[in-house]
Amino acid sequence: MQALFPQFTQFDPLTGTIEGAPSLERHLSDLRGYFADQTAYQAAFTQEDALLYTVTNVEPAQGDGALHYGISYLLPGRVGREYYMTKGHFHAWRPAAEYYIGLRGAGLLLFEDEQGHSWSTPITPNSGVYVPGHTAHRTVNTGPEPLVFLGIYPFNAGHDYGTIQERNFSQVVVDVNGQPTVMERSAFLRTLTQI
Amino acid sequence: MQALFPQFTQFDPLTGTIEGAPSLERHLSDLRGYFADQTAYQAAFTQEDALLYTVTNVEPAQGDGALHYGISYLLPGRVGREYYMTKGHFHAWRPAAEYYIGLRGAGLLLFEDEQGHSWSTPITPNSGVYVPGHTAHRTVNTGPEPLVFLGIYPFNAGHDYGTIQERNFSQVVVDVNGQPTVMERSAFLRTLTQI
Repeated sequence: MQALFPQFTQFDPLTGTIEGAPSLERHLSDLRGYFADQTAYQAAFTQEDALLYTVTNVEPAQGDGALHYGISYLLPGRVGREYYMTKGHFHAWRPAAEYYIGLRGAGLLLFEDEQGHSWSTPITPNSGVYVPGHTAHRTVNTGPEPLVFLGIYPFNAGHDYGTIQERNFSQVVVDVNGQPTVMERSAFLRTLTQI
Repeated sequence: MQALFPQFTQFDPLTGTIEGAPSLERHLSDLRGYFADQTAYQAAFTQEDALLYTVTNVEPAQGDGALHYGISYLLPGRVGREYYMTKGHFHAWRPAAEYYIGLRGAGLLLFEDEQGHSWSTPITPNSGVYVPGHTAHRTVNTGPEPLVFLGIYPFNAGHDYGTIQERNFSQVVVDVNGQPTVMERSAFLRTLTQI
């Protein structure tokens, strides 16, 4: 057998882990400034620096044409009315696409391109969701159980978190009368000051 | 929403189909010359031009960094002692890797690089199997139920079937006393003439 490790990997769609691969944890403290409702964020953080999600990646090879894959495990929950979500990022190599494969739970993918256009798609078990190049993407868990999905991407996709950290996404996903609702961030912020 | 179709697709891990995407069928007649035991092939073909597998692909975008994905559905069965399998191919763009995600059933992936080195890995539900660039790959269903898996690959991977059609894989996967066994083709052919 060719020296290529790990060519075969087993993942667990329930726990969002890959056998033999270390997981990265993201807690509430890692997402300071990302949630719209800062009062709700402070209240949640004071109570507990909760785990929001884990990411586990496998990098079997490098070089032109090579692919990596990872599994994400995003817990259910909310900060105020905003659902638990990932930081979101552009790929450092902007043209890099990514394929998400939904395994468990229910959520939304928020997209925002370099011109600031926003849209979203669902992500559900047994779905393939295409993340185009040049597009920031954030995953939001809108359901009662963990949202688990695979991501397959070019080896050199990389992460650019900085751009999102500065400008954030223009849309938020919030609970409105028990329904997950995509809303402009500015409109959501106005509802907070009106209360 | 950006004009990008289909960004969200739903697949069925039981039937190996993708909603709204046409499937390609491969029958016994499409694999003339691929199975080692030609007498067994003729006997099977005379009986019925059986469906061996279907492949369904989604091509959401083209261009540098873009990815496509597909689902394969490989039926259980044998031609003589050799299990049902795909034609197998190199990628036309040799460096292109591919990630296989096992959904249903049990099988093996046969690999053969450009220098003629051969090896294999299992493919099972909830596994990620890396197909490196510059490597021919063939899937073999060694179990009693359909083998279903996803494949994610660079948009320009393409298919080179010709090289395999000419030289075939040097290894075969055959039933030996009820056990799926990887064997050199030449050694398997000797067992046939000895009977």
